[in-house]
Amino acid sequence: MTPTATTPAAHELSLTRTIAAPRHAVFRAWTDPALLKQWFAPRPWSVSEAELDVRPGGSNFIVMRSPDGEDYPNRGIYLEVVENERLVLTDAYSEAWVPSEKPFITIILTFEDEANDPGKTRYTARVRHWTAEDRETHEGMGFHEGWGRCTDQLEEVAARL
Amino acid sequence: MTPTATTPAAHELSLTRTIAAPRHAVFRAWTDPALLKQWFAPRPWSVSEAELDVRPGGSNFIVMRSPDGEDYPNRGIYLEVVENERLVLTDAYSEAWVPSEKPFITIILTFEDEANDPGKTRYTARVRHWTAEDRETHEGMGFHEGWGRCTDQLEEVAARL
Repeated sequence: MTPTATTPAAHELSLTRTIAAPRHAVFRAWTDPALLKQWFAPRPWSVSEAELDVRPGGSNFIVMRSPDGEDYPNRGIYLEVVENERLVLTDAYSEAWVPSEKPFITIILTFEDEANDPGKTRYTARVRHWTAEDRETHEGMGFHEGWGRCTDQLEEVAARL
Repeated sequence: MTPTATTPAAHELSLTRTIAAPRHAVFRAWTDPALLKQWFAPRPWSVSEAELDVRPGGSNFIVMRSPDGEDYPNRGIYLEVVENERLVLTDAYSEAWVPSEKPFITIILTFEDEANDPGKTRYTARVRHWTAEDRETHEGMGFHEGWGRCTDQLEEVAARL
């Protein structure tokens, strides 16, 4: 009933970091709207709104505000939620299960104890795309710098918890 | 970090039927590989292989065989599983969470008691697409006839359980 599909490449961009805060704090900074607003956009961008229904199929709605005050809304859903361990999100659905205008990314986050560094977190973000072109576009939009700076901000927030 | 997304149309095709079998039987015919093989392809097509890991994030792999013996593999995952009530599948991922070559459909199945007809099931399949073009293609591929005939076959299987 559906066209043939074969296993494709994951078209992945990724970032791994040691964060100087325990897993539960990093996970909380990702899942508590008031905390997420403090780090999710690279300054001087900001987050003007964040609604997070953190459960499989739950929606998230995050509005990023540019330095000149323009709002950029983002809608997505959570695909998998394992407290303090793992979080999977996508913008392929604007809510469960409404296909979005353009499936662009799937974000797989893992939060692990840093083996030789008690109280710190091995944080990995794998960002997958449906096409090689989208991966390239995302890289060109400044994925590495943007996620790098946001991860610095995430660490500041998590370290205070 | 991601492009703007607004709530789009669901680009839906759908089918509703009263099936002369209880909900649990219809649900089982969808989730037991040996049963699914008996109805999932409109005869004289058949299903040569079916592996169903029925849980959110679990994979399904279904190979449809044409009358002249050619195999057409389909890979997807389950997004939501509520026993005897609801099943959501998509081919946007070939496994959790590997983006597929082409996100084409999201299938939302509901199994309800038929209000005035004890022992029968109100069966609804909502099939959503990411674009108007894909919905049109699917309709042109014979969605209504194909799903209609498969639903007849599904009923035969479920009624025997």
